[in-house]
Amino acid sequence: MAAVHKQKFSFEVIRVCPHTGARAGILRTPHAVIETPVFMPVGTQASVKTMSQQELEAYDARIILGNTYHLYLRPGHDLIREAGGLHRFMGWNGSILTDSGGYQVFSLNDLRKITPEGVVFRSHIDGSRHLFTPESVIEIEHAIGADLIMAFDECIPYPVSHEYAARSCLMTGEWAERCLGEHEKTTDGAQVLFGICQGSVFPDLRVLSTESLVAMDFWGYAIGGLAVGEPKRQMFEMIEITTPILPESKPRYLMGVGYPDDMVEAVSRGVDMFDCVLPTRNARNGSVFTRNGKVILNKAYQAKEFTPIDPECGCPACRNYSRAYIRHLFQTGEILAPRLATLHSIYFYLETMREMRSAIIENRFPHWRDEFLRRYRNEEPNP
Amino acid sequence: MAAVHKQKFSFEVIRVCPHTGARAGILRTPHAVIETPVFMPVGTQASVKTMSQQELEAYDARIILGNTYHLYLRPGHDLIREAGGLHRFMGWNGSILTDSGGYQVFSLNDLRKITPEGVVFRSHIDGSRHLFTPESVIEIEHAIGADLIMAFDECIPYPVSHEYAARSCLMTGEWAERCLGEHEKTTDGAQVLFGICQGSVFPDLRVLSTESLVAMDFWGYAIGGLAVGEPKRQMFEMIEITTPILPESKPRYLMGVGYPDDMVEAVSRGVDMFDCVLPTRNARNGSVFTRNGKVILNKAYQAKEFTPIDPECGCPACRNYSRAYIRHLFQTGEILAPRLATLHSIYFYLETMREMRSAIIENRFPHWRDEFLRRYRNEEPNP
Repeated sequence: MAAVHKQKFSFEVIRVCPHTGARAGILRTPHAVIETPVFMPVGTQASVKTMSQQELEAYDARIILGNTYHLYLRPGHDLIREAGGLHRFMGWNGSILTDSGGYQVFSLNDLRKITPEGVVFRSHIDGSRHLFTPESVIEIEHAIGADLIMAFDECIPYPVSHEYAARSCLMTGEWAERCLGEHEKTTDGAQVLFGICQGSVFPDLRVLSTESLVAMDFWGYAIGGLAVGEPKRQMFEMIEITTPILPESKPRYLMGVGYPDDMVEAVSRGVDMFDCVLPTRNARNGSVFTRNGKVILNKAYQAKEFTPIDPECGCPACRNYSRAYIRHLFQTGEILAPRLATLHSIYFYLETMREMRSAIIENRFPHWRDEFLRRYRNEEPNP
Repeated sequence: MAAVHKQKFSFEVIRVCPHTGARAGILRTPHAVIETPVFMPVGTQASVKTMSQQELEAYDARIILGNTYHLYLRPGHDLIREAGGLHRFMGWNGSILTDSGGYQVFSLNDLRKITPEGVVFRSHIDGSRHLFTPESVIEIEHAIGADLIMAFDECIPYPVSHEYAARSCLMTGEWAERCLGEHEKTTDGAQVLFGICQGSVFPDLRVLSTESLVAMDFWGYAIGGLAVGEPKRQMFEMIEITTPILPESKPRYLMGVGYPDDMVEAVSRGVDMFDCVLPTRNARNGSVFTRNGKVILNKAYQAKEFTPIDPECGCPACRNYSRAYIRHLFQTGEILAPRLATLHSIYFYLETMREMRSAIIENRFPHWRDEFLRRYRNEEPNP
């Protein structure tokens, strides 16, 4: 059984940019064939906020994220198992990746206590007490049933001492081993496990963490603990330290990143997969991303802009509605406002990834990257 | 010019039920051919709450409502005129009907003062002072540019004295005449005007109001001031008094109604058009309408109901999602929750109208009505 399923998973790098670290690949899971580099829209609570699964399908999104911490609390992994897994529960036929809950649990600050066994935390919803261990998290992720699942790690905050980061990396390493052990013991083969490299902004720890995880032979690797407040220069430095250590044949996932230009820079350094709440969260606050940079929609100066967010964009918001109308929807609190803004930004993120992939395959990535960054960073002036 | 446009408007009764007052008709406007009986989804602020115009088109909705009071305040009728009218502003290619703002203005209670000239009121948004007169309302409705526009009336609250209602009816009659005069003086022919019959629950006043409006020869007629708190028995009695006085050749619109069974009863008494916020508003609160009655989605007893809202329903919510999932979305405050609930209820309303129309055309309306009411009123028991 396990073997049959496992054959459905594969990752293949089909082109490497000769001038940068950029790669184009194909990631096969039982639910979808995913072309990398890929952006995975975040569906924290089994919904990519404001979007329907049909809208994601229409965008040809192949993989979305679910958050283990949130799904464990509501509706609960037992209910999801009873529903036949998260795919069936939420009516999504593509692939799913679940994080391990580490990021959320460690964000709780006062509500949690770390021990070598695991983390005791209190729910942000009702204050109830819970324990996450590497073993319990794998059990929860198996119940949820995503295609790609993540090991339980400590997402180290920034800034932090070298001493703290070193101890944390060791613990994350031990937890990774326990996750792997639990996964191999209990998997039915319908899922593959990623390890998460940590190390804060310390090069020696990044190397140590990555090498130890590579030695454990995970199916894929995530780079965690970045985009948590450190300077961008340091974020890219850590990526540059990490990707050369990672096996070329395995997928690389930069967690929680990010801005469109950051993703382009990260692809340039050998990253294949991304997730981030920015396109959805900022859209709900009236701010969207375009190839010309950020556009703020819910401002008075948009009141009579009877043109689309981006006249060159092919998304349903740009094909059918004006900035003036969307601004009116934001002003009056209509739900169609965050819907249209999200439809635009998710489309832009997915399209940017597809364009980038074509550029890599057609051996013109460096030029594409430079043009994209030049245009994107020349942000639209706000009057 | 006016004449050219006006030819685009027509109403034709194509079948009358031989046993009831039910009629099937065709209402032509420059933007759509509307088959009656029809339910018009309410887009108060230029958006049918939670839905996109593309979703309404996919439902083959031919006409929606806009609210003059709300659109006058935000974004303002001058801005809508500058955008090229409401159709262009909101990207809606079907027909639109605007109410006159009477209902909203008279709902403001402490914020408004009625004089024979018109109504002085304060905005519910910022307290600013405004005057609506029959003439100014027509000017605003012309600027908004809906296909069907309504005369400015006083929507009498319930209960009210016969004396108050009588005075109000006289005033509404005078205002109707002024609206008609202003409309005929300034129309470019792209719109037709409906008069609104009032009279509270007093048969003599309903007769008086209706007869006086019929004498003025409006293009269509609305029955207003019902579903404002009076017993249903009285509501139907007022409809029964009104429809026989109205010209057979003109469309009849029962404003603000209503529940699915009430619409069926009203069609049975000769009404052609309906609007109501119930399917959208209740959906946002987790309550939807089905052929088996009301279903509450955001309750614990739905947590493991892995079946659709209505397995027989063809709407996108029922084809793709379970009650358990939608309940989870409500519990976690996801925007997809009100979206799916609204998608279901609006589909049900539109489908019910289409079924009813077929039954009228195929001479089986009384049987269809009895079956519908029997099934609908046997409401699903809440455990």
